[in-house]
Order: sequence, then structure tokens, then C-alpha cells
Amino acid sequence: MKEKKIRIIPIGGLHAIGGNMMAIEYDNEMIIIDCGITFPNGETPGIDFMIPDFSFVLENKTRVKGIIITHGHEDHIGAIPFLLQKINVPVYATKLTLGLVTSRLSERPVNTPTFIEIEPRDVIHIGPFIIEFLRVNHSIIDGVGLAIKTPIGTIIHTGDYKIDYTPIDGNVADLHRFAEYGQEGVLLLMSDSTNATNPGYTPSEMILKKKLLEIFAKSKGRIFVASFASNIHRIQQVLEASQKYNRKVVISGATMQKNIEIATELGYLKYKKDLIIDAKDTDKYTHKKLVVLCTGSQGEPMSALSRMAAGTHKHFRIGAGDTVIITASVIPGNERMVYSVINSLMQMGADVFYEHDEEIHVSGHASQEELKLMITLTQPRYFLPVHGEYRHLKAHAQLAESLNIKPQNIIVAHNGDILELTPNRFEKKGNIPLSTVYVDGTYIGDTTDDIIAERKTLASDGVIVISIVIGDGLLLYPPVIISRGFIGIKNDRFIQVLQKELSNTIEKQLLQNASPEHVTVAVKKLAKMITHRFTNNTPLIETIIQEI
Amino acid sequence: MKEKKIRIIPIGGLHAIGGNMMAIEYDNEMIIIDCGITFPNGETPGIDFMIPDFSFVLENKTRVKGIIITHGHEDHIGAIPFLLQKINVPVYATKLTLGLVTSRLSERPVNTPTFIEIEPRDVIHIGPFIIEFLRVNHSIIDGVGLAIKTPIGTIIHTGDYKIDYTPIDGNVADLHRFAEYGQEGVLLLMSDSTNATNPGYTPSEMILKKKLLEIFAKSKGRIFVASFASNIHRIQQVLEASQKYNRKVVISGATMQKNIEIATELGYLKYKKDLIIDAKDTDKYTHKKLVVLCTGSQGEPMSALSRMAAGTHKHFRIGAGDTVIITASVIPGNERMVYSVINSLMQMGADVFYEHDEEIHVSGHASQEELKLMITLTQPRYFLPVHGEYRHLKAHAQLAESLNIKPQNIIVAHNGDILELTPNRFEKKGNIPLSTVYVDGTYIGDTTDDIIAERKTLASDGVIVISIVIGDGLLLYPPVIISRGFIGIKNDRFIQVLQKELSNTIEKQLLQNASPEHVTVAVKKLAKMITHRFTNNTPLIETIIQEI
Repeated sequence: MKEKKIRIIPIGGLHAIGGNMMAIEYDNEMIIIDCGITFPNGETPGIDFMIPDFSFVLENKTRVKGIIITHGHEDHIGAIPFLLQKINVPVYATKLTLGLVTSRLSERPVNTPTFIEIEPRDVIHIGPFIIEFLRVNHSIIDGVGLAIKTPIGTIIHTGDYKIDYTPIDGNVADLHRFAEYGQEGVLLLMSDSTNATNPGYTPSEMILKKKLLEIFAKSKGRIFVASFASNIHRIQQVLEASQKYNRKVVISGATMQKNIEIATELGYLKYKKDLIIDAKDTDKYTHKKLVVLCTGSQGEPMSALSRMAAGTHKHFRIGAGDTVIITASVIPGNERMVYSVINSLMQMGADVFYEHDEEIHVSGHASQEELKLMITLTQPRYFLPVHGEYRHLKAHAQLAESLNIKPQNIIVAHNGDILELTPNRFEKKGNIPLSTVYVDGTYIGDTTDDIIAERKTLASDGVIVISIVIGDGLLLYPPVIISRGFIGIKNDRFIQVLQKELSNTIEKQLLQNASPEHVTVAVKKLAKMITHRFTNNTPLIETIIQEI
Repeated sequence: MKEKKIRIIPIGGLHAIGGNMMAIEYDNEMIIIDCGITFPNGETPGIDFMIPDFSFVLENKTRVKGIIITHGHEDHIGAIPFLLQKINVPVYATKLTLGLVTSRLSERPVNTPTFIEIEPRDVIHIGPFIIEFLRVNHSIIDGVGLAIKTPIGTIIHTGDYKIDYTPIDGNVADLHRFAEYGQEGVLLLMSDSTNATNPGYTPSEMILKKKLLEIFAKSKGRIFVASFASNIHRIQQVLEASQKYNRKVVISGATMQKNIEIATELGYLKYKKDLIIDAKDTDKYTHKKLVVLCTGSQGEPMSALSRMAAGTHKHFRIGAGDTVIITASVIPGNERMVYSVINSLMQMGADVFYEHDEEIHVSGHASQEELKLMITLTQPRYFLPVHGEYRHLKAHAQLAESLNIKPQNIIVAHNGDILELTPNRFEKKGNIPLSTVYVDGTYIGDTTDDIIAERKTLASDGVIVISIVIGDGLLLYPPVIISRGFIGIKNDRFIQVLQKELSNTIEKQLLQNASPEHVTVAVKKLAKMITHRFTNNTPLIETIIQEI
């Protein structure tokens, strides 16, 4: 008899923040959990974002029975349109999550998928899997974890979560069901590691309320609030504070506008009808009666807040008397951009409240004590930390060990690892090759690491182009040398020497009947040497040879 | 009678961390305080570092009577060689600071300057200024603040400082003299704002001792410690811990080596003669007997630690059993690099202690309570926060206000501002124009913001080069199109269309006897349009026209 086993393949989300995607297989049936993007960083110049490498899923296309989405953040839903262009299977998620997915789908041509709306505690059957959705708290509402009953045991996947005893909507994470599953026996727990290096407890969203009201109470001019467009709880708090202090709210930024529309329509945001006004009507109100809710909490150069800080925003010029609240933590790597926006806003005279003020933002991810609670409630036999850089996964694994999960029962996995799970073992069995899939303008997956490397060299030292025209086996003119992003071009002596020595070499090569390929190699080599000698720089060197 | 006044001109260090430099003038005499570099960041691709714009100082060359250096950090001494290439005046500093300056000077050809070694509490006369040096604590030893007696009153400049009641060398900041000056009357205080947004007190360097010894006690393999090469106190602690646990120390990294040599020679580092061994002798010792002290605490790609993490270091391959201690805080903007090194080291199996463990690093800058102490001790009439981004300067100004310094007596200044100080007023009177001076390979100041902008475009979208050969007023061949860092080049249809439409346009232009300049403009415009239509990207477009 064949051994019964589950295969778990993390496709994205390990060793990185973002790009979450996982495949779970039993026999010939597979489900996909989440399908998100990874945001670009300083290492990916010119890239819009990255999506997971779907090749494994596409090769096994016929076996995929459904996509389950835990919540509506970009790093969990953003790549769905790209996947649905190539595969057509049902998508299961809660109402708000489906609303946000639908909004993303409108941006790209895809087959109309089957959407199945679920609610916490709903139970669905997909092939051999019986899946219950368990409410969790997070920085977006309507997030769920999954309890997946399989023929060999129960797998818990927490999704992104924290435990908030006083969430804005009153819906506390479903600790009772997590506990019941723990009581029944959990074979494997997969739990969010994002904050696994943070000691203690992540504070409740509620602590912001006091601080927000305090700032609203004392502000005498306009109040600008920058937040993630998906943080519906946070937005609800701002709307409530605005109502309390009789201020009208202007929404600035396309995503913010869209998300508020969706959340309002689906009943997740509650406020008086006339609270939100159009930007063009702001002149009708005094500064004391206005709140501007906008995007740009990460200092993104084209965001509403950045444009306001740069004085280039269409409607708003921030100045003395204004208050700015940036209610989001800085994603590592964005510090310089965010601080630069804060410095500009302060110079314009605004009072700025930001991460530095501890009560102006709370994380959406569980800290160590909550992670311990989850492990303790579910009492898993095996443990797979998910969502995080290696240091987070490792810290989470250590937490699990401290709770007496056996070290050999914990895997700190890599994306692409094939993890085999049976009732008695959990181990790595080979892996699937994955590549980074860059989305770059209209190009998906065409941008290679080579092109990224070229861009980095271009950024650091620029490019020199040498154009050579050959006629009748002779160099017709001295080579034309142009450059971009390269400082040495201003050095006349260097250009003269380069031109002269290149001419000599080319003529010598031509006398020996060298092929254009040989001439190219010789020219590049010589140009590189001379350039480095004169300028200490190593720009990219490109040659164009034309024969008349 | 002419009004007696001091002019204070901050040349660098405001609205930025780094590049500290200030001029203080009275009548026809000027002193310079510090002359440091600014480290490059994501906004300055390819740049080695920036130096202050000396033009104002050079225009007033004959009036400069001395350069006073507060301490030996790069952002206070790094630009001295560039200044001394153009000006020859005495340099005043403490022994270690002069040692480090001398070491920097050896890297560039400069006139041999007059070095005047001072000690804390020494008093020197430079023109109308009587300057006393006051010991402060900082993350480098031998740092001083300045009490500058002028004909109109006393100016205190703190330098970079914190107040450490239990420093490693026992030399506490000279609170008594700061207090005495306060008692006598201080006209203006200029104080370090780097940590002005940090509440509370910066902990003593001593708290590391316990943690370090704890880690040393339990480590069973090699211990790698990454630290700033200038943090002599920290290095002393590592050497002491190594001695205590009978480990030999290997120094890795050229700057680390050099600084330890200087500090040892000058008597600032104390350890047994045979403690430090050569890298090539490591094989003679078991892992348990080795400590490697290296640079790379900021994840700098070419540093010793990064190479060890990448497995490309000449001598050391980090693996299971090794312990790595990164004893420095992450400079904002370096997070991604540092975390990437940490993730790699952990994946190689090392135990890594880093900033996250609070006792593994302490800052060298005063937090709010220390800043308040300094203001309270010196009781200045006027206040100028220095060293920091705008948000730091602003926070420091607010602290001063909270201590009843009148708001109109505080200036949050910009680099280049000319600040006039008399016994009864302190105000901004015009400003000198400053530009950013980039050091880029062998080029100093030649790299312009234009070239930086070009590099950013190259990094994001690459470059297309179109080469056109014209003979007898005709286009001899279809234009040759090459590109680097540009993804669209892989799109055959785009290249075909581009080539065809360009040919048509060029031929049309040539028929109308258009000049090469006109052809260039037309070609660039068309190429830009077609490229954007096909690829959604906007690479730099460069053309080369050659006429046969």
C-alpha cells in the first residue's frame, strides 16, 4: 500500500517579506494558499514589483482545485491576476478580500473566475481537504487563518495575524476554535513569523484611538493622515475622530479612494453620508474643519503625501498650522524616503506625528507572546514557520523549541522546498527550481537578473558607447565616443587618448583582417583599461561597428 | 563705532547626518570647526562620498586662522585632506584625533600641515578667540567640546557627545567646566542633535561588558565581532573579553587594522603583546581559541563581514558553531544590507547577535535627558541645534523651549546660513550658496546633479543607443539599435517597428536637407514615443550620427 502523504511547497514568502504563496498536495489534488507580490527594493532598479514563479503550479495545472486567500493585502492577493491569466479555478475568500481581489482583476484582462465568498467558521470541501476558516486579527479586516483537515491529520495555517482583544470591530481572533483543534490534535502548524524577533505583545489597534482623539482635540488647522490604503480599521478610526470633531474628510490617492469605496459598499466602513467631501470643495470649509486622508506612509515618491511635502500636489499645500499624522511603521529600506518627507513637512511648518511617537501606529503581526499562545493552543506535532526573512523564521523556530516542540519536528524551509508530511514524519524531499519573476512596465518575467545587474552598473558608473565606421577594410573616421551617467567624458585628455589608442588598435586589427567580433573584443578591452586608468571608474562599454 | 559681532556659518552637518563643518568669524579672523564627509546613500549612485563645499572658506582663505577638530570620526575629519590641498593652516585636535587625521592625509598629496596637539582643559588663543577644550563622551575616545571665548561672549560647541558616567577609560564628560561656563554666562550653545528624538538617557558603554562576557562565556566556536573601526572603546572591550577567555584575536579589514595600530601606538588600546595574531596563523589555534574582529557592521558589500557571509572571504568561512556579534546600530538606509548579511550568516549556521538584542550596542549620542542636562548646565542665552536632520534639529529646539529658552532665541538653521550673533541678538543675515560636492573615483566636484539624475534613469530603465550612418545625404543602412539595462530589446517586433519608423523619418528629414541636429531631435522624439508605446518604459535615448 502506498504511504499516505501530504506535500507542502512554499512557493513564496520565505526568506523575504512578501510574495506569499503556498501549494498543498494530497494524491492528485492541490490547493493554493495566497498569491501575493513582493515590493521592489534598492536591489531591483526599475522594477514595479515581483510575483511568485508559477511554473510548478502551471505544470500541475489540472490538479489545482482552488485558491484560498487569507486576507486582502497586496503581498497575499497582488499576483492573483497574473495567475488567473493562465489558470481558471475557484477563489475562496471573505467578502472584503474578494472585493479587493475583484478590484485588482479589473486592471488586467483575465478569465472571469468563480469567486466563493466564505465567512469565519464556514467549512468547505475541496477534494480531500476539509477547510475551516478561523478569524484572526490583522492590520486589514476580514483576515482568516485556515484549519485544513486532511486524510492524515489537521494542518493549521494562521495567515498573517495578531491577537487583538479589543479590535475596532469587536471581532477577536477565534482563539476557541484554535484551541479546539489543538485539543483534537494538530499535525502541522504554519504560523506568521514577521514579528518573531519582537518580544512581548503587539498592542491593540484600540490604543491609537486615544492618541488620535488627543491630536484631533488640539489641532487648530487641517489634519492630514497618511495610512496604508488597506488598513480599514485605521481609516474607520480617522473617520470617527473626524465626525467627533466636526471635520469633513477629503480622500487623496487613487488606491485609498478605491479601497474606501469597496469597504463602504461592503459595509465595513461606517460614517455619516456627508462626512466625505470632494477635494474641489475644500475651499468651502475652514482649515479647522478639514481632514485629508491620504496614501504615502512609506514616502513613495509619487504618493499624495510626498507630493504635498514637495509642494507639487494639485490641491493641497501644507504649511504652518497643519498637522500631519503618519500612522504606519516604516518598512525596512524605506527609512530614507520617509524621513525625507517628514523633514520637508516639518520645514513647511507642519506638526508631524510619526512612528517615533509610539502610540501613532501598532503592528498587524503577532509578537513573541502571541506566537507562543498560538503554538500552545494548537499543540502541533510539526512546525513550519512561514512569512519572514530567515532571521524571523529562525527566531520563530527557537520560540517553538522553547515550548518543547522537538527541534527535529521543525523545518526552517526555503521557497521551492518540497516538504513531505506523514503522521510520523515531516521532512524536506527535494525542491523545485524557482526564479525571480520581475514585473517591469508591460514585461512580466522577461527582465532577467542580467538586466538588473546591468542597471546597477549603469547606476554606479554609467555607460560609454564607441561607434566605429569601417569602409573597404579601413577605419573611416576616428571612433565616436559618447557617454551617459559617466563623469570621465568631461576629461578632454582622456577622450583624446582613448580615441587615439582605439584608432591605432582598430587599424592594426583591420590590417590583420580581424573580424568585427575580434575588433569589438579588442576595443572593449582597451577602452576598459584606459577608462579605469584615467577615471578609476568601470562604466559599461558598448561598441557599434558598421561596415560600409 | 562699528557693532561688535560674530558670524557663524554652518557649512555642513545641518539637515543631514554627516559632512560636519562650521566657520566662526570675528572681524577679519575665522576659525573652522570640523571638516567631515557625508556617506553616500541610495540617492547618490556611484558616488564614493560627499565633502562640504569649501568655496566660501577658500574665498576667505587669508582670514582662516585654524581648523579645530572635535573628534576622529569620518564625518568630522574625512574631508580635511581635500581642504588642506587648498589651504595651509594649523590643525588643533587631541592625540587620537590627530593620529587618525594623519592616517587620512597619507592617502592624498597635501602640504604638510602644522598639527597642534591639545588635551582636555587646554586653552589656546587663535586671533580674538580663546578656546578651551572640554572632554565629552562619544563612540570614539578623545572627543572634545569647545568653549570659545570671544570679545562679545562665550560660545559652547559640544561636538558629538553623550554623557557616560562609567566610560571604559574612566574619563567622564567634563560636566564641571560646562557648569562653570554656565555660571559665568554663555551667550550661545551649539549642541549635537543626532538623538534629539530619543527620550530618556543613552546607556553607558559599560552595559555591553556584561553582555559581551556572557556571549564569550558560552560560545564554543570562533567569535566574530563586527564593529566600527573607530570605536576604540568597543574594541578595547572585545580585546579584554578575549584575554579573559584565552582567545587570540585576528584583525580583519584594512581600516580596522590601521586604527588599532594607531590607537595602540598612542596608548589608547591596552592588551597583552601576543593577543593579536596574523590571519595566516589561525590554523595553529582551535576554533574555541579565536576571535575575529572585523569591519562590516553596516553590511557594506565589500567589507570583511559581508565577504564572510557570502562565502568569498580569503581566510574565513563562517559555519555552524561560530558566533557573530554585530555591535553597532544600523544607520537608516542600510537596513536591507545589514539584514541580508544577518540572514546569510544565520543560514550558514552561525549564532548571530545584532541590534535587535538591546545590550549589544549603545549609541554615542546624547538622548533627550542628557541634552536637557547640557542646556541646563550651560544656561545659554541663544541656542543653535547642530548635527542632524531637520526633524532632529526641530526636536532639539523644542527641548530647549521646554527649558525656557525663548523661541526667538533659537535658530533652526540651514547649511550656508549666515548667522549674526551680538550680545543682544542672534539672527539669520543672508546666506552663502552651497553645492553638493561629490567624490567619484578620481573626480572631486566634477560629478553634477545632472549626471546623478542620468544614472538614476539608467538604473530604472536603461539606455538605448541609435547609430545612424549618412552618406551623400542618404541613410546608408537601417539605424543600428543597441541597448543596455533595457528589457524591450528582447521584443523583436518593437525593434523592427522602431527601425522601420526611424528609417522613414530620417529619410524624410534628409530629403528636406535637415541638419544632423534636426535629425537627432526627430530621432530621439520618435524613438521615445515608440519605446514608451511598446514597453511602457522611458530609457535614456542616445543617438550617434556619422556622415561619410
